[in-house]
Amino acid sequence: MELQQNPWRFETASIPYENPWIRVTEHRGINPAGNPGIYGIVHFKNLAIGMVAMDADQHIWLVGQYRVPLEAWSWEIPEGGGPHGVDPLESAKRELQEETGLIAREWRQIVQVHMSNSVSDEVGIVYLAQGLEQGTADPEETEQLAIRRIPFMEAYQMVREGAITDSLSVAAIQKIRLMMLEGEL
Amino acid sequence: MELQQNPWRFETASIPYENPWIRVTEHRGINPAGNPGIYGIVHFKNLAIGMVAMDADQHIWLVGQYRVPLEAWSWEIPEGGGPHGVDPLESAKRELQEETGLIAREWRQIVQVHMSNSVSDEVGIVYLAQGLEQGTADPEETEQLAIRRIPFMEAYQMVREGAITDSLSVAAIQKIRLMMLEGEL
Repeated sequence: MELQQNPWRFETASIPYENPWIRVTEHRGINPAGNPGIYGIVHFKNLAIGMVAMDADQHIWLVGQYRVPLEAWSWEIPEGGGPHGVDPLESAKRELQEETGLIAREWRQIVQVHMSNSVSDEVGIVYLAQGLEQGTADPEETEQLAIRRIPFMEAYQMVREGAITDSLSVAAIQKIRLMMLEGEL
Repeated sequence: MELQQNPWRFETASIPYENPWIRVTEHRGINPAGNPGIYGIVHFKNLAIGMVAMDADQHIWLVGQYRVPLEAWSWEIPEGGGPHGVDPLESAKRELQEETGLIAREWRQIVQVHMSNSVSDEVGIVYLAQGLEQGTADPEETEQLAIRRIPFMEAYQMVREGAITDSLSVAAIQKIRLMMLEGEL
């Protein structure tokens, strides 16, 4: 029943756009119905890595930033790009410290998803970081960030009300709440 | 504290790629640190709409398909593209019937997210569909789908184990489980 092979038959491929973060490819060939068709794919050069940093008082850190594609401000868990070929946990540790200054003793992966699989191959991974210690933040020059430390349940309420819309943050905060309700945290 | 305005100053924009589903734009200008930079954006021409169809026995429908960008088979909730300017609930009703043949009497929105906001403006919306009646399916020619009806808790287990990775499906199935645990379903 499972069609493990590509039902498209691609004949040609081109790269109409590339920058340091994405590469867009267009494939032409025969679609699953046997007719000519095209498929445009956005390849991501980095993993999307998120970190829920939770302290002993069950507060977590949120990062606010202007998201250019949305033309809107967005409150999210700390996130950053992790190069393929680098252990995503190492990228998570680096990004958490860059954005918030936090260093965590305990890490566990809580989410792994494909962000938007009809068009892109982007992988999202989220870690829960606990056993926190405050160091010094060092954000990248292209970022202009605001940082908040809030009770987890307030962040969960923001998800419920649609005040947090970033899909990786939503999946992660839902997952933490499920872990609480199911006795895993 | 909230920087509601774009911290980039864009000077030029181009459209290096466009197809019926996405439009890629590249913006050049001055980044938040005051240095020259570029920003590539993938604009989506459709909403990503998902439907959790749940019957009176708490079974739900999953759709399996080969996802070309991942080069892999993926089990997901039924999903489809909804044109901007069309009520997403109408798109959801149409897509659910096309993919599964199901017609639902009761609909409620349970998820609204931005799928991948560092690069794209794609919006994802999921509805819970109940009060189901079986009609006739009519999939699009570019789709080659497998359909399963399974107990909700089996789908939730697939999310927990990483057997379902589609981000919209993960958010929706976690949300349904939270609604169950919090007495909202």
